[in-house]
Amino acid sequence: MGTQVIRDVRPLGAAAVDVVLDRATVEAVLPAGSAPAHLPLLLDGRGQLLLPALVESHVHFDKTLWGMPWRPNTAGPTRNDRIANEQRLLPGIDVPIAERAGPLIEHCIARGSLHFRSHVDAQTAFGLRHVEAMLALRETYRDVIDLQFVAFPQAGMLINPGTRDLMRAALELGVDIVGGIDPAGIDRDPIGHLEAVFAMATRYGKGVDIHLHDPGELGRWQMERIADMTQAAGLAGRVMIGHAYCMGAFPTADLAPLADRLAALDISIMTCAPPHTTVPPVAWLRSRGVNVCSGSDGIRDAWSPMGNGDMLERAMLIALRYGWSKDEELAMAFDIVSAGGARALGVESYGLAAGCRADFVLLAAENLAAAVVDRPAGRTVVSRGRIVARDGVYTGH
Amino acid sequence: MGTQVIRDVRPLGAAAVDVVLDRATVEAVLPAGSAPAHLPLLLDGRGQLLLPALVESHVHFDKTLWGMPWRPNTAGPTRNDRIANEQRLLPGIDVPIAERAGPLIEHCIARGSLHFRSHVDAQTAFGLRHVEAMLALRETYRDVIDLQFVAFPQAGMLINPGTRDLMRAALELGVDIVGGIDPAGIDRDPIGHLEAVFAMATRYGKGVDIHLHDPGELGRWQMERIADMTQAAGLAGRVMIGHAYCMGAFPTADLAPLADRLAALDISIMTCAPPHTTVPPVAWLRSRGVNVCSGSDGIRDAWSPMGNGDMLERAMLIALRYGWSKDEELAMAFDIVSAGGARALGVESYGLAAGCRADFVLLAAENLAAAVVDRPAGRTVVSRGRIVARDGVYTGH
Repeated sequence: MGTQVIRDVRPLGAAAVDVVLDRATVEAVLPAGSAPAHLPLLLDGRGQLLLPALVESHVHFDKTLWGMPWRPNTAGPTRNDRIANEQRLLPGIDVPIAERAGPLIEHCIARGSLHFRSHVDAQTAFGLRHVEAMLALRETYRDVIDLQFVAFPQAGMLINPGTRDLMRAALELGVDIVGGIDPAGIDRDPIGHLEAVFAMATRYGKGVDIHLHDPGELGRWQMERIADMTQAAGLAGRVMIGHAYCMGAFPTADLAPLADRLAALDISIMTCAPPHTTVPPVAWLRSRGVNVCSGSDGIRDAWSPMGNGDMLERAMLIALRYGWSKDEELAMAFDIVSAGGARALGVESYGLAAGCRADFVLLAAENLAAAVVDRPAGRTVVSRGRIVARDGVYTGH
Repeated sequence: MGTQVIRDVRPLGAAAVDVVLDRATVEAVLPAGSAPAHLPLLLDGRGQLLLPALVESHVHFDKTLWGMPWRPNTAGPTRNDRIANEQRLLPGIDVPIAERAGPLIEHCIARGSLHFRSHVDAQTAFGLRHVEAMLALRETYRDVIDLQFVAFPQAGMLINPGTRDLMRAALELGVDIVGGIDPAGIDRDPIGHLEAVFAMATRYGKGVDIHLHDPGELGRWQMERIADMTQAAGLAGRVMIGHAYCMGAFPTADLAPLADRLAALDISIMTCAPPHTTVPPVAWLRSRGVNVCSGSDGIRDAWSPMGNGDMLERAMLIALRYGWSKDEELAMAFDIVSAGGARALGVESYGLAAGCRADFVLLAAENLAAAVVDRPAGRTVVSRGRIVARDGVYTGH
């Protein structure tokens, strides 16, 4: 695997090019037909779209029931009901995490995602089992994908003694990011929760990623505190706030001071664009310089049977959620599941230009907007210069 | 094509059966393996799910740009902008309606829909061109699908002199239903609009189908007037209200009197479950006896490039919109795109029991809930006892 070429592909729908790869890196992007004839052919794109690999910025691989027999959802209606339901259910699952999360990861790769951030539960009901299983699984796929982990206190941190110890142990084992969840709504002590999160981040030199479902004024107030602590800890560019439903409760004019702080501190906002609740005004946030990314959240798990890990379908769902129909809006939806995610996750050398990593999705679509609308299933995926999926099927690591 | 058998299928996920067909009708449903061995085999289901054909209750086939080169959406932001945009654009399209709507209809069939209600524009900008083209196209597919048409005054009726004449002409040509649109918001004379609609329905012996985007109190007040006129005209069971966004603006307690009238008059509510606006509380409406159906609305047209006509995907989008995750909720989403639509459209002998029409979708899924979540693409479709699609591809009329 030295120098190779992908011939006749249209980057994001632009004019056809040949892409010359030097192992795992793009060496040159040339007009179609002009790459030297002697170069070994990695792929003949036949005019397909060339897209950068998709970025899954928020998923819970460790809790999926993917591949198992269907299990009717039995959770009660509240978030705490769902947390308790999962605590009862998951320890009794006899299929190892790797045998559920592994096939799901392969499915996601085959849909074009190569960069992932997965939350991994560090809660007393599970001990370090989820963390250890996912760290082992990361090794299995280390030559194919980038997989970041968040030590996630799903059941609360301060209200569950022992959770902080598990999170610290997870970080010492190699988990990348300190997680948090509804500092007010679940943990009942917003300042205590956030101080603990940021103290761990500082001590271990990690970023922060906080699930924030808390609504309205309560949520917004906590976002301001997250901004304060990001600034105080010098963690600009390394903090993500997930969901941020609260931002959908305000006219954008009322959000301007907060948005400007998020932009200045490069705090990314992650939305799955759920249709049944309020959502952050992402087009407006982006226009003010706030980075926005997206994710699948839980996929076929004890929370919900929904989801398939397809970030191109997620782009379509984002567009539907916000009522987008213009080409530039559909391109924005794509940007959120690609470059926005890469910025949030700190993926280096992301893109399609010379010098970028050779991480691509190829698919048959007329242009980028049509790809988002139609989500063609027959995708070819190239990871680090190697083909890892053909026609939507994972071909291996 | 006399007596034939479909072997080894699971009706809505229940225990496997053999389905004996007498031409276009289900003659008997027998435990799997017990149909007489001498019967000709129409299909070996190999344990696939057997579903009744899907019902598309609200689509605009006449205006689709399906199959044409991608056309960026250029409409302005308001509903009236979009109406004007379409009036400018469609007359200049040189691909005949049949060459756009026909392939889309075949695509929809291949996704499992066999019963359709399509609005067809009867507006002065288009004259009777859309009506005539769609009536001709109906003949092409008459042996495969049921296709109802609504004479649709997209640009308003009273505010566009000549529209009523076009609608009357459409009804005389064979269009099935009298349409209406935002009697207050677009036509600016709600009582005049509804009186004209119901007068035409009475005169021609037709049902009524009204697009109602008007929001909040204004929408609700018009729904009450539609109920009044349905009652006065003796049109119980023959009226549909599409979108009904206004119902999403109220607590259900405030909607009870209206819902009870809708139920008593069997007025169906059609929702596409759009995520970017308020939607009727469909689970609650159903619990009060109101029939709910769904549709794709415009598919790849001048209004929006979105949509693919897949009513199983629509069921998934309905479930997402309402935050449904229980098996019974996913079954409800399926019911809305199947039996709910059949009731709204007056499809007779709909279902999977003996005596029902042999109109089916077969697909590989563990159960009904999984079918809604996963929307498998490889569907086999049986229309009136004949296979009309295999592996998701239309095989012909």
